[in-house]
Amino acid sequence: MTGVVGSGKGGGADRRRITRALSAAEQAIGAVKGARSVAERLALAAKASELLSAVWQLPPAQRLMYHHGDRLVDVDPASTPGFDGGRGEAERFIDVSSGEIARFMGLLYANGVHGSQRRLLIVLQGMDASGKGGIVRHVFRQGDPMGIHYHGFGAPTKEELAHDFLWRVRRELPRPGWVAVFDRSHYEDIVMPHVYGTVPEKTWRARYDVVNEFERSLAADGCSIIKIFLTISRENQRRRFLDRLDDPTKLWKFDVSDLDARDRWDDYMAAWQEVFERTSTSFAPWFVVPADNRWYSRAVVSELLRTTFTTMNLTWPGLNCDPDEARRRLAAS
Amino acid sequence: MTGVVGSGKGGGADRRRITRALSAAEQAIGAVKGARSVAERLALAAKASELLSAVWQLPPAQRLMYHHGDRLVDVDPASTPGFDGGRGEAERFIDVSSGEIARFMGLLYANGVHGSQRRLLIVLQGMDASGKGGIVRHVFRQGDPMGIHYHGFGAPTKEELAHDFLWRVRRELPRPGWVAVFDRSHYEDIVMPHVYGTVPEKTWRARYDVVNEFERSLAADGCSIIKIFLTISRENQRRRFLDRLDDPTKLWKFDVSDLDARDRWDDYMAAWQEVFERTSTSFAPWFVVPADNRWYSRAVVSELLRTTFTTMNLTWPGLNCDPDEARRRLAAS
Repeated sequence: MTGVVGSGKGGGADRRRITRALSAAEQAIGAVKGARSVAERLALAAKASELLSAVWQLPPAQRLMYHHGDRLVDVDPASTPGFDGGRGEAERFIDVSSGEIARFMGLLYANGVHGSQRRLLIVLQGMDASGKGGIVRHVFRQGDPMGIHYHGFGAPTKEELAHDFLWRVRRELPRPGWVAVFDRSHYEDIVMPHVYGTVPEKTWRARYDVVNEFERSLAADGCSIIKIFLTISRENQRRRFLDRLDDPTKLWKFDVSDLDARDRWDDYMAAWQEVFERTSTSFAPWFVVPADNRWYSRAVVSELLRTTFTTMNLTWPGLNCDPDEARRRLAAS
Repeated sequence: MTGVVGSGKGGGADRRRITRALSAAEQAIGAVKGARSVAERLALAAKASELLSAVWQLPPAQRLMYHHGDRLVDVDPASTPGFDGGRGEAERFIDVSSGEIARFMGLLYANGVHGSQRRLLIVLQGMDASGKGGIVRHVFRQGDPMGIHYHGFGAPTKEELAHDFLWRVRRELPRPGWVAVFDRSHYEDIVMPHVYGTVPEKTWRARYDVVNEFERSLAADGCSIIKIFLTISRENQRRRFLDRLDDPTKLWKFDVSDLDARDRWDDYMAAWQEVFERTSTSFAPWFVVPADNRWYSRAVVSELLRTTFTTMNLTWPGLNCDPDEARRRLAAS
């Protein structure tokens, strides 16, 4: 994460470069199905991946990862660091990338069926109306319900409060081969008491270590973890809230208690700042993503997810029996 | 369910009629967003729904519902009853319908957030390679991971066997506002012992009543239930298995034990026949869907789902506070 602000209004040359990379990526992806060998398929997929990465001036994973000492207030929510295109290029990127993500999800799922422990957890945090829900829909645009588990964490129920704060989290973790998306998470159990003092300071402060240990053991067990904070401006939140109040199909998203949280904006920012400082680790890093422009934050999350998948080096599982024997039995039956 | 076989090769006039209905439906759906009032929006949605229904010569819900005395062996898996179009028309129907399903899912989810108990359970059954997995992907093509829960039931684990057979099923039921898709289900706990004798006959036979009571209470509690059996021919299964053996990206789906089940084909059909006879109820009916043509079975399931949603008469929840008060607070903060 750096203080440098990307313009998001790249010149015509930048946009043409992005468009060319996207077209070439689409072409490579389209050719994968017709590949005559495993080697050719892998080469085409690698080429597509390289072209999609080339859309970014700097990989979001590098540009937006939180490093100790970074300050949340220094991030301009309206900026679009690392991306030289506009809304149109971002939309097209999300489209192409979502197809690749769907392909990777199929691979991950297949490996899960064949005994692999690999899985992926995405933690989405951000103030109300920062776009957590919409991101899920767009990033997994071409997804398959088979292999993805979404869960929204609300205020804990009586039953949940009767257990340790990670109890309800453990129940929603991804199974082998699956991707889980947490809309809010165990981090609420640190931030909320920090802001409202509902739990003794000693108790919630101890949770930093508990969470780090929890995530470390998850990662060691084959679960990749991406933690994302969508940062919007107060002014942008006001506009989004007014939109909700004006749209009969969005009224249901609005709750008057959202305004209480808005009144404590600075307290929330301070609480999150401390969360990043204490829990951004090499095995479960935080990414602070400017989200006033929805198309930018969606493209970033799509790219973070896609590049995480590429580092998994997944291949299609083989057959657990003799194929000729299977063909013979099939011919006879 | 009737013995009459639809041709699936309707004449040019039939195809043109379907294409016209689909175009008009798309137009109505496209206009919904620009509607100036709730009444206009509802009218356009109703018109789109009517046009989509008109694609079918007879509603699948009527044509394919199992009635006592129907015989599974009388259903031609290659037939396409009620649909006069071909693959192209079916594909286009699934596209348009999946958008409507996504809209309904959003409505259902919003109502769940606001205290409604309404939810939907889809049970998918069928022999190996009958297309259970692919249907999920296609029917929810435009879906949102938020609000859909997919679960595949495999052979019970040791922990699952230590509980009653519905224990693992209850844990995967849809939450209020959600759609759950079961790829296999509690019915395996009747069919498998029936075919293989792994459990005393008295035990598995008693499960018919248990299952009916379970589903009756679910339905009474606001959970709509659609149970689908995809029926394919043995020859079609052979072709699908050979496809899997020839495609490195599909090998993972093949397990040599699938051939054992294939050897007991007639026993399975007899066991399923009894399941339909004993558990097709008004609150949780079975639909027997010819599935040799994937495009047909996908279109049918899409339409069953869409029409189930239309009977729910869902509307967008209103605001739980005074909108002007909320706007005032927003302006001041």
